[in-house]
Amino acid sequence: MEKFFDPRSVVIVGASNAPFNLGATICNMLKDYLVYSGAVYAVNSKGESVNGYPGYPSVLDLPETPDLAVIIVAARHVPGIIRDCAQKGIKRIIIESAGFSEEGEAGKAMQREIDDIARANGIRLLGPNCLGSLSTRNRFCCFYGVNPSLVELNQIFEAPGGVSYIIQSGGVAVLVMESLYYDLVGINKVVSIGNKCDVDEADLIDYFQNDATEVIGIYMENISDGRKLMESARRSRKPVLIYKAGRTKEGAQAAMSHTAGMAGNDLIFDSACRQSGIIRLASIDELHTLPKMFSEMPPLKGKRIAAFTNTGAFGTIAADLLVDAGLQMVRLAPQTQERLKKAGQVFNTRNPVDIGPAPPQTYLDIFEVLLSADEVDGLLPLLSVWQPFVIDCLLELLKMCRHYEKPAAIYTPNAVAKSISIRAKHCIPIFETPEQAVRALAVSQTYYQSLIKRNL
Amino acid sequence: MEKFFDPRSVVIVGASNAPFNLGATICNMLKDYLVYSGAVYAVNSKGESVNGYPGYPSVLDLPETPDLAVIIVAARHVPGIIRDCAQKGIKRIIIESAGFSEEGEAGKAMQREIDDIARANGIRLLGPNCLGSLSTRNRFCCFYGVNPSLVELNQIFEAPGGVSYIIQSGGVAVLVMESLYYDLVGINKVVSIGNKCDVDEADLIDYFQNDATEVIGIYMENISDGRKLMESARRSRKPVLIYKAGRTKEGAQAAMSHTAGMAGNDLIFDSACRQSGIIRLASIDELHTLPKMFSEMPPLKGKRIAAFTNTGAFGTIAADLLVDAGLQMVRLAPQTQERLKKAGQVFNTRNPVDIGPAPPQTYLDIFEVLLSADEVDGLLPLLSVWQPFVIDCLLELLKMCRHYEKPAAIYTPNAVAKSISIRAKHCIPIFETPEQAVRALAVSQTYYQSLIKRNL
Repeated sequence: MEKFFDPRSVVIVGASNAPFNLGATICNMLKDYLVYSGAVYAVNSKGESVNGYPGYPSVLDLPETPDLAVIIVAARHVPGIIRDCAQKGIKRIIIESAGFSEEGEAGKAMQREIDDIARANGIRLLGPNCLGSLSTRNRFCCFYGVNPSLVELNQIFEAPGGVSYIIQSGGVAVLVMESLYYDLVGINKVVSIGNKCDVDEADLIDYFQNDATEVIGIYMENISDGRKLMESARRSRKPVLIYKAGRTKEGAQAAMSHTAGMAGNDLIFDSACRQSGIIRLASIDELHTLPKMFSEMPPLKGKRIAAFTNTGAFGTIAADLLVDAGLQMVRLAPQTQERLKKAGQVFNTRNPVDIGPAPPQTYLDIFEVLLSADEVDGLLPLLSVWQPFVIDCLLELLKMCRHYEKPAAIYTPNAVAKSISIRAKHCIPIFETPEQAVRALAVSQTYYQSLIKRNL
Repeated sequence: MEKFFDPRSVVIVGASNAPFNLGATICNMLKDYLVYSGAVYAVNSKGESVNGYPGYPSVLDLPETPDLAVIIVAARHVPGIIRDCAQKGIKRIIIESAGFSEEGEAGKAMQREIDDIARANGIRLLGPNCLGSLSTRNRFCCFYGVNPSLVELNQIFEAPGGVSYIIQSGGVAVLVMESLYYDLVGINKVVSIGNKCDVDEADLIDYFQNDATEVIGIYMENISDGRKLMESARRSRKPVLIYKAGRTKEGAQAAMSHTAGMAGNDLIFDSACRQSGIIRLASIDELHTLPKMFSEMPPLKGKRIAAFTNTGAFGTIAADLLVDAGLQMVRLAPQTQERLKKAGQVFNTRNPVDIGPAPPQTYLDIFEVLLSADEVDGLLPLLSVWQPFVIDCLLELLKMCRHYEKPAAIYTPNAVAKSISIRAKHCIPIFETPEQAVRALAVSQTYYQSLIKRNL
């Protein structure tokens, strides 16, 4: 599987100098943008070179057998090219072309043909109808159509991280990558699997157990082999977050025209997720908002949460949301309340703890009192950044959370744009809404329980 | 009521030159920041002037009877001051001080005392335990503690709009104002009502019928007079959006310590909202995300929605969300699909309409075809801004929506920070998530139905 993400040599079949050629966009990105260190070849009918990469009229003419072939030509040419690849001894192929099982019977037959050739020759296939693979640490990416002027792309490669994504749709992959640049966690790998005639999400979950991945995010429209997915998820020692579109009849119909496959029964999928420890996401943006809770914070080992706010009303909102999410507003012990009183400026020493204008030390004392209290499993700080020192206090909080092995889901009741900029500038895992923060606590707890249930 | 927002003269009781004096922050804002055109007086024990505004030891010493008194002193001094105000003939008083019915029996007794004096003298009271009032068009604001270095505050006054807020908690008021600066709609008035011993949300809904208000947003922790609120809402010809915290037992307890009052039965409130046309908000951020749907778009008159995306997967997501929200994925008529085919580059002419890379005219043609189709009540465009021309197309869409009197809830599958900046720069009502966009359509439909039911 490694060679899909870290090939030492790759051929782009279909890259040419014709206007609007999609294969050329891959060559340009590898050459000018990523300065990819491996060998790159182009295959096109004229055998012309593309942006300095040598070109050949056929895969059979290549001077070596590349680790990976990326195919981006009209669907009808693909079976022939796969045969050439097989003859050349290429064992890893990404088919980015569309026009297969998502487009009726003829396409389905062609997909079966490809599949047969691959299987007979020990070839692993990614796609068809996909965007390909990306690996930040290896500076490899074979996504087509990427506009290299995107500042975000550069950031993604400059600051690699621990989230790996398996995404059926290219558009969602682009959104998630762009969003994560404004969030806290960096990307390890991204792979778009399209119609997944061979490699599927389960294979990739297994593969991500043994690389720099810390969290796995998945966007799916259909599941080809439910049992296989559940088994790989059950084995996974890294959190698996899945957003599945096509829940409703109407959504499933829309998915049919977009990627091939049936959406399956949503209730069955839901219970399978619970059994195998998969975290099922409630909205597409959770794919990029939730990973930071796993990469930056210890897991939530119990359900008892203390809320702490400098903006009174948010204590009330927090209490509602915690209860809705199945967590508990912890009843603080008398000695904890006693210690809070000593911190000074505390309006309310019961949960939610509520303070007025106070100096930094009051914030730090309250963090310390709450995190060290036996009755508290985790923190929900709802702290408006009304003075810059609140940011410094939050940075201290991160350290304390690691020390006490209890998480905090931080929400800053400021405009989202401001919270995003504080998050990016100071590397603080800030959630954009109180709902997101409470959800992160609930998900962390569920994940912790599933680890225990799965004996991991 | 007008004089709470547009006084020709105001006295700030409790403003002094002592360090950290809160009354002084109001004087500073009026003088240096808002350049408020009315007369301002300060009252403090020394009778000293504050930032150039003349000072007096008592309200009784003022050279005129001001339209409005703003009181911000320790609670125990308030009853005496109210008596002075009554004697001076002042008829409008805002009590910003805390320490009344939210703080036990002694506070409650004091609040009753104040109330009695006011009633006997025909005085209308706002508060106690509140932040006061703000009117963008009159450049008046008596919020205390505002940091005048906030860039946002300036923007709020420079670009007035049609949203008026009634907000029980000061912290929420500040968040909503800050957030709206990054959203699309401007503010008309903001009022924080605190313990609402006299003026309450119902009085203000009535008042907002006759000013520049287009949408009313309300944040509440408790309802003092449910019947009165429902009656004013039923009469309202402007949308009333309410977020109510303290839904759960735990939330209601938290609210008790923060503002006074019982949260009441949530189910009863929910059904009362439906009966009186109140739009009940699901999260605090809807207070600033939803108004643009009312100020920028015609109402949604039916439930049949056409989705249109240039990022395939979002059609699937849209279909799921529309069905969840009780709306319908419209089945496009054969002649509509025929016209869509002519627009070119359309992958899927059934709903959701799905296009690949296409020139601007294709976007415009599709908008036109869908909005003019009889079977379509509204649009859900899920259009990634992959090229700047998409922004121009969205600007054209706004005009077309007004022409066809059908709304579009626009979502751009880009990073939230990017969508926010496009929204602000080009004045396009872009929602931050597909969930928000679908919710806006559902709310618009519910509101339209309630107008008909209420014969408005």
